[in-house]
Amino acid sequence: MKFVMYKNESGQFIGIVNPEGTHVLPLVDTYEKMGGKKAIPADLLQAISLGEVFHQEAEKTFQWVNDNKLDSELFIPLETVELLAPIPRPAKNIFCVGKNYAEHAIEMGSKDDIPEHIMVFTKAPTTVIAHDQNILAHSELTEQLDYEGELAVVIGKKGKAIKREDALDYVFGYTIVNDVTARDLQAKHKQFFIGKSLDTTCPMGPWIVHKTTIENPNNLDIKTTVNGEVRQDSNTGNFIFPVEEVISVLSQGMTLEPGDIIATGTPAGVGKGFKPPRFLSSGDTIEITVEGIGTLRNRVTKQ
Amino acid sequence: MKFVMYKNESGQFIGIVNPEGTHVLPLVDTYEKMGGKKAIPADLLQAISLGEVFHQEAEKTFQWVNDNKLDSELFIPLETVELLAPIPRPAKNIFCVGKNYAEHAIEMGSKDDIPEHIMVFTKAPTTVIAHDQNILAHSELTEQLDYEGELAVVIGKKGKAIKREDALDYVFGYTIVNDVTARDLQAKHKQFFIGKSLDTTCPMGPWIVHKTTIENPNNLDIKTTVNGEVRQDSNTGNFIFPVEEVISVLSQGMTLEPGDIIATGTPAGVGKGFKPPRFLSSGDTIEITVEGIGTLRNRVTKQ
Repeated sequence: MKFVMYKNESGQFIGIVNPEGTHVLPLVDTYEKMGGKKAIPADLLQAISLGEVFHQEAEKTFQWVNDNKLDSELFIPLETVELLAPIPRPAKNIFCVGKNYAEHAIEMGSKDDIPEHIMVFTKAPTTVIAHDQNILAHSELTEQLDYEGELAVVIGKKGKAIKREDALDYVFGYTIVNDVTARDLQAKHKQFFIGKSLDTTCPMGPWIVHKTTIENPNNLDIKTTVNGEVRQDSNTGNFIFPVEEVISVLSQGMTLEPGDIIATGTPAGVGKGFKPPRFLSSGDTIEITVEGIGTLRNRVTKQ
Repeated sequence: MKFVMYKNESGQFIGIVNPEGTHVLPLVDTYEKMGGKKAIPADLLQAISLGEVFHQEAEKTFQWVNDNKLDSELFIPLETVELLAPIPRPAKNIFCVGKNYAEHAIEMGSKDDIPEHIMVFTKAPTTVIAHDQNILAHSELTEQLDYEGELAVVIGKKGKAIKREDALDYVFGYTIVNDVTARDLQAKHKQFFIGKSLDTTCPMGPWIVHKTTIENPNNLDIKTTVNGEVRQDSNTGNFIFPVEEVISVLSQGMTLEPGDIIATGTPAGVGKGFKPPRFLSSGDTIEITVEGIGTLRNRVTKQ
């Protein structure tokens, strides 16, 4: 099941996208039509915080629409709404795993850059934009804007000191993140945060796929194109630290909370990895496709 | 003017602490008694987001109490309430400047560690605790828990690409932060985030002092004691990057928002700087005093 946030002239809503990715079902409206009795918030972050019950009620609603053949009546074409990021305003910074694919670590330096232990930095919540929103070029600040296609994990349940074998129980679902990076600022300021947190540098979406539809998050094809040209083409099976380990290590001394977002790292093929480097320019379109989730597309613009 | 958040059996409240730091005035209650007409939220983060009007109405209320000699009637002893952190749950990670005092950079390595450019990392919002709350020793995870006394800036106004000369206009006030750090995790995971984000490792408070009572944030004595023994004794005049520059650099490509908290870095004298190092143990009490603000005190405990 694919959960989106979208807006139209009447407000902001949670929607369920059909498997084909063409139409969206207004969840709260439909739930009320069905006679659903629970209070479902209009915001996906709050809905995820309700726990399992949210997914169960959403499943029921989707089933009710199918059973009563109301699809064509209730689903609306995706192109008639504006997608928001599935979590437009995270309640804390986005956690990001650095150098989680060996080939990427090597392209950023050498074999010595392959981390022995998980490396985590963050992106400010103010970086988040939706599918099809524009990434600012920030050309007054950086000459080295770069893309990083990544699988992102959305936490569904509060937890601390989570064991590896229990880790996936704490996941709500998965989405795609473009961890857009100003390489020159990343290097200049040593700690990654500043180069990772320019406004609009965290495209996220187009939706969150519930974990029940992803058999194994550590075996998903991931591909990034720039203006149609393939730049990154890998599989999350190449993770140095699989999703379970990331969740377990992060939560050892720090409580994870529903709605937390963990970007799992990017494979080889970033702009900086090319000789000479191929950084982003105004007008470029980046598309990141992750198997079982969909495609996140954004364009770089001057303003 | 000193703003606190506190709780008692009836709920959570914003308070104004008297200059002596002994009594607290329940703000919203008193404001209503005065006949104040604006809606003042019960939460300091939301109140700060109102902008200048919040400080103005608070000043009016305090003046009204003085003019009508209602002090003894309305102020309640601080020891009868439980202080919360002034912003118990920040809306994003706390920004932290690394190595902003040359002597500290040297004690952490050598002169080569003095940064040329501002270095910023973050602490998760789940790290925040109040004055007199306990810091968990996390002894199953770290053998090198360390203190870092710091002046923290609380942003009062949304801004981007803020000029140095305008930077203090964007400040609401100042507080104290103990940037408690697991040195072994900080080193092991390269990027600082994991070693800086264990639960309870961001004591904050005891209150926020409004900027109008701090003539120059870059000239404040700052002192840290552990069990009464002075460990850090410096002045924010030793900043490599003064407050104005930190705000300006951070905001160049990233929007700052009301309630954002920036910890400005710690002076020399952290536990790791001693030979041999003097890390924290269960039972230790850390007190950080910043001139014009007050003293933040916390104890390390096993659980």
